Amino acid sequence: MFNKYNVIVVGAGHAGCEAAAAAANLGSSTLLITMNMGVIAQMSCNPAIGGVAKGQIVREVDAMGGYTGIIADKSTIQFRMLNKSKGPAMWSPRTQNDRMRFAEEWRLQLEALPNLDIWQDTVKEVIVEGNTVKGVITSLGIRIEADAVVLTNGTFLNGIIHIGEKKFGGGRTGEKSATGLTEQLVSLGFEAGRMKTGTPPRIDGRSLNYAVMEEQWGDEERGRFSYTDVEIPTEQRCCWITYTNDKVHEILKTGFEKSPMFTGRIKGLGPRYCPSIEDKINRFAERDRHQIFVEPEGFKTVEIYVNGFSTSLPEDVQQKALRLIPGFENAKMYRPGYAIEYDYFPPMQLDLTLETQLVKNLFFAGQINGTTGYEEAAAQGFVAGVNAHQKTNDLHELILKRSESYIGVLIDDLVTKGTEEPYRMFTSRAEHRLLLRQDNADIRLTPIAHKLGLVSDERLAKVNKKIKDSEELVQYMKDNSIEPNAMNPLLQEIGSSELTQKSRMYNVLTRPHVNIQHLMSADNALQNVLEQYDKETIEQAEIKVKYDSYFEKEMEIVNKMKKMEDKEINPDFDYSSLTSLSIEAREKLLKVKPRTLGQASRISGVSPSDISVLMVHMN
Amino acid sequence: MFNKYNVIVVGAGHAGCEAAAAAANLGSSTLLITMNMGVIAQMSCNPAIGGVAKGQIVREVDAMGGYTGIIADKSTIQFRMLNKSKGPAMWSPRTQNDRMRFAEEWRLQLEALPNLDIWQDTVKEVIVEGNTVKGVITSLGIRIEADAVVLTNGTFLNGIIHIGEKKFGGGRTGEKSATGLTEQLVSLGFEAGRMKTGTPPRIDGRSLNYAVMEEQWGDEERGRFSYTDVEIPTEQRCCWITYTNDKVHEILKTGFEKSPMFTGRIKGLGPRYCPSIEDKINRFAERDRHQIFVEPEGFKTVEIYVNGFSTSLPEDVQQKALRLIPGFENAKMYRPGYAIEYDYFPPMQLDLTLETQLVKNLFFAGQINGTTGYEEAAAQGFVAGVNAHQKTNDLHELILKRSESYIGVLIDDLVTKGTEEPYRMFTSRAEHRLLLRQDNADIRLTPIAHKLGLVSDERLAKVNKKIKDSEELVQYMKDNSIEPNAMNPLLQEIGSSELTQKSRMYNVLTRPHVNIQHLMSADNALQNVLEQYDKETIEQAEIKVKYDSYFEKEMEIVNKMKKMEDKEINPDFDYSSLTSLSIEAREKLLKVKPRTLGQASRISGVSPSDISVLMVHMN
Repeated sequence: MFNKYNVIVVGAGHAGCEAAAAAANLGSSTLLITMNMGVIAQMSCNPAIGGVAKGQIVREVDAMGGYTGIIADKSTIQFRMLNKSKGPAMWSPRTQNDRMRFAEEWRLQLEALPNLDIWQDTVKEVIVEGNTVKGVITSLGIRIEADAVVLTNGTFLNGIIHIGEKKFGGGRTGEKSATGLTEQLVSLGFEAGRMKTGTPPRIDGRSLNYAVMEEQWGDEERGRFSYTDVEIPTEQRCCWITYTNDKVHEILKTGFEKSPMFTGRIKGLGPRYCPSIEDKINRFAERDRHQIFVEPEGFKTVEIYVNGFSTSLPEDVQQKALRLIPGFENAKMYRPGYAIEYDYFPPMQLDLTLETQLVKNLFFAGQINGTTGYEEAAAQGFVAGVNAHQKTNDLHELILKRSESYIGVLIDDLVTKGTEEPYRMFTSRAEHRLLLRQDNADIRLTPIAHKLGLVSDERLAKVNKKIKDSEELVQYMKDNSIEPNAMNPLLQEIGSSELTQKSRMYNVLTRPHVNIQHLMSADNALQNVLEQYDKETIEQAEIKVKYDSYFEKEMEIVNKMKKMEDKEINPDFDYSSLTSLSIEAREKLLKVKPRTLGQASRISGVSPSDISVLMVHMN
Repeated sequence: MFNKYNVIVVGAGHAGCEAAAAAANLGSSTLLITMNMGVIAQMSCNPAIGGVAKGQIVREVDAMGGYTGIIADKSTIQFRMLNKSKGPAMWSPRTQNDRMRFAEEWRLQLEALPNLDIWQDTVKEVIVEGNTVKGVITSLGIRIEADAVVLTNGTFLNGIIHIGEKKFGGGRTGEKSATGLTEQLVSLGFEAGRMKTGTPPRIDGRSLNYAVMEEQWGDEERGRFSYTDVEIPTEQRCCWITYTNDKVHEILKTGFEKSPMFTGRIKGLGPRYCPSIEDKINRFAERDRHQIFVEPEGFKTVEIYVNGFSTSLPEDVQQKALRLIPGFENAKMYRPGYAIEYDYFPPMQLDLTLETQLVKNLFFAGQINGTTGYEEAAAQGFVAGVNAHQKTNDLHELILKRSESYIGVLIDDLVTKGTEEPYRMFTSRAEHRLLLRQDNADIRLTPIAHKLGLVSDERLAKVNKKIKDSEELVQYMKDNSIEPNAMNPLLQEIGSSELTQKSRMYNVLTRPHVNIQHLMSADNALQNVLEQYDKETIEQAEIKVKYDSYFEKEMEIVNKMKKMEDKEINPDFDYSSLTSLSIEAREKLLKVKPRTLGQASRISGVSPSDISVLMVHMN
């Protein structure tokens, strides 16, 4: 450890690891500070990466040279492409992961980065001079200077763990919380709030009766997150599904009077879409069961994660209720579920680069911004790490658009609208989700990352080849036709009307239920052509053919909005003098300092007429 | 987790893991309670197992069915048999280990034991009714009953970490300390004290210049700890040796005025034979350099352990001094060294079973008893775990004799003499060390463990075969002779006088420098015979031949002392009425409650005349 770095990253969770790696890979001398080098990159909650919208985010981070996808691939014990029956915009990769392997692979990855140092310590204070961050001071009293600092404190800032009526300080169970930093930031003028999240009990898998549960295996043909050639473990582990029932709910209810959630002891709001089991029972009283996913924590360990059973009820209630779930009759807990309250900083205090408005070169990423989820954290960490480097080297900032990435949606939502409860990504949050698919994250983002210097020429060339090849293949299907005799038996089989004449492959493929395998099996020439392309290219071509008209319409919408989105507003724009704006709009615009008219239009309380006023004034 | 167990073990370090495993393997329903399931079986200090006397202890634990040897073998990155140039009593196996693999293998081992449950929580209190322990109460407020409790709290009880003038609570760096338990035990009448230990900084190995250091590889023919067939990693990693110098010492001295050791802020005594670098400079002012072993923390990690550089000087002084060591010019620390003070309970409060005298069925093992070292901890844990089971099932207790094991020496020393500074094992502590060798730990102890039910019939049979075969082989060498012509060229080579006539192989082998390989290469018949035996048997036979006379003399001494050692004293013996004993002797005898006259004779302050009085009175 030296006394001065370009970039200091505080915290080595999913956000911090990506931030540190990105800054280091861009060439910044980078210091990653963690309270405990033994617990870098913990999966503090479920042993899984990805899922709906989250899987797309991981692909995006990977497409730009981040590592979450690579680490997830290396530690995957099961892969599933969710929503495969729906349109490709909904396809979402998800892995179950070996928790220990995941942490170890991240640690080894960080150790291998040339510009990255690691220091075990706790940051007590950021050094601020004028309005600019200048470094950090640690609990050992060490002063380390830096041009930029990225805070990724997760749930550690004044973390308090609740289990029934018990509460104690901690950043995670068994770990210390971090104190002092919130108070300093507040003294600097930052607004802080409290949020809450929770986690289910962990179980000794030997005590479960899997025979009465439903097996859930991963995809036979295993996909991956990373666009790079990562070696994926060959072994696969099974998960299981079971359900709660009325009896379980009745027992859980006996703990409600001691629930820290229901008795008001927890003030912070929890993640709406990842509710505790007591929340689910309370809010969905009509449902007589809830699904429980029984997920192994790794290849060899017997530890089980009880997905769907997050709870902060008293430990004895957890235990009793669990044992009424089919298969859990003899369940032995390793540790109870718990809730944790922690400090966050409402993200409207940030710029779209994730730099704070108040202190120059100070960046926030992850749960500190009010988000939930490893993937959301990783994405923010990546962007913050990139911008910490770019800003302090007078280089172009990285702001991803809503029309080009979920990451753009995530950060724009946070910064523009703020959040009062833990923010989780959904496909529904992305208005252009048809364009933001897991299959084209590389096409969307690798060129951007290449310009930044985060991905190699080879990698960019690979993406360009994928684009060119898939277009070639689409053209081939436009240029070539298929004989009714060859195709009709297959069409009959899948209930599609028969061809009456020679038809363009392209047109046949646009039909529902017809896929490129059907065409291929009916046409030898196509089969020969396809053999020249790799799987991803063929998939890309197929998606293009089947959904091209939708994509085109979506692009039209994007282009219409482009004028607004591209219309930049000077961050120092003097809204207060514009008395024709509503008072609320003036206040909000001053707070958010939108970069573009498009961003301004998304601020709650800024009306279309306010936008018109702005447009008039800007022209 | 259930509400009641036969045995509860508190703490999952080297002592706790062995204790829990032993109790569970004997058939006790056992609960292992750890503050954090993520950090089971940490190598908190150096990434190595064994060494002089310690390696023998690991072999002993292994011979009785403990796991430390197996886990060390599975995670070994380098094996060396120390003192191979000396007599076999000094041969001491030592491994460098992969710290992560070691912890993971222990965890997986524990997970695989049928009678063992694990619970993540902190024990705040032991439940005591009358004079008997009845269970524990945890920080979650959970009451768990047990027939016996084993406390293995390591450095966690009121742990305080010191670095220069900084100090903060912690059981290890980055981890919480445990509070409340000491205070309760003291309120029950236990005497508590403070001890201190320390650890060196950890370094980013990429910042070192290995070219200027001496390489230190492991043995080419790799040995192992375990008598079982554990698969050992094939890869081996290099260690390095370098040295401090005057300049390093000068810099370190600049930190002395802030040293928590020298300024009296640390009250507890540290391990004399594992001193900090500032201690070494202070105590051995005449030495202008000290050896530094540069040890990798694992197969893949770049983290380096700086063996020999334990320190609690201010972090900046550590950093500056380190960089003056050859090869460390650009060294980057991951974390500074530190000292830790913690509570221990002077071990004269224990019985030889490691049960406390004050509270029935309450056992202590490891650093809580004032010892230092993973091996010492593991051995105590094993014995405490066995006795917790045996005692609560009215079965025979396990007390190993000083003449049959280092473990016996360790526990007898602790209980009989107490310790005021961290106790570490040395060969010199064992008066019968000629008999307590790493090669015969199985012969000494496996039969005892078999009687307890801790090792299988197969394993005992293997030991018996080793005994029988090696005796057979010795007999063969007594019965058969070798021709001068065949042997003399070899004898010439090694500078041993030539044979003038046909001589018994046995007699030739007793010569210094002659080994069984020499005989074998000179005699085809012997070579054919040896092919029928395994390596360990041949080694055993060779040791027997070469050192038999010494062993016999040692056995004579043991037998002479046997009368005293076997003469049992009733633990309730009323010393106070024996006014012919010195007052000091009466006090000490009352305190220690020796089991035998032999043990009584080793109590400091009990004189030979006191022993005579006792003998008279007992007859």
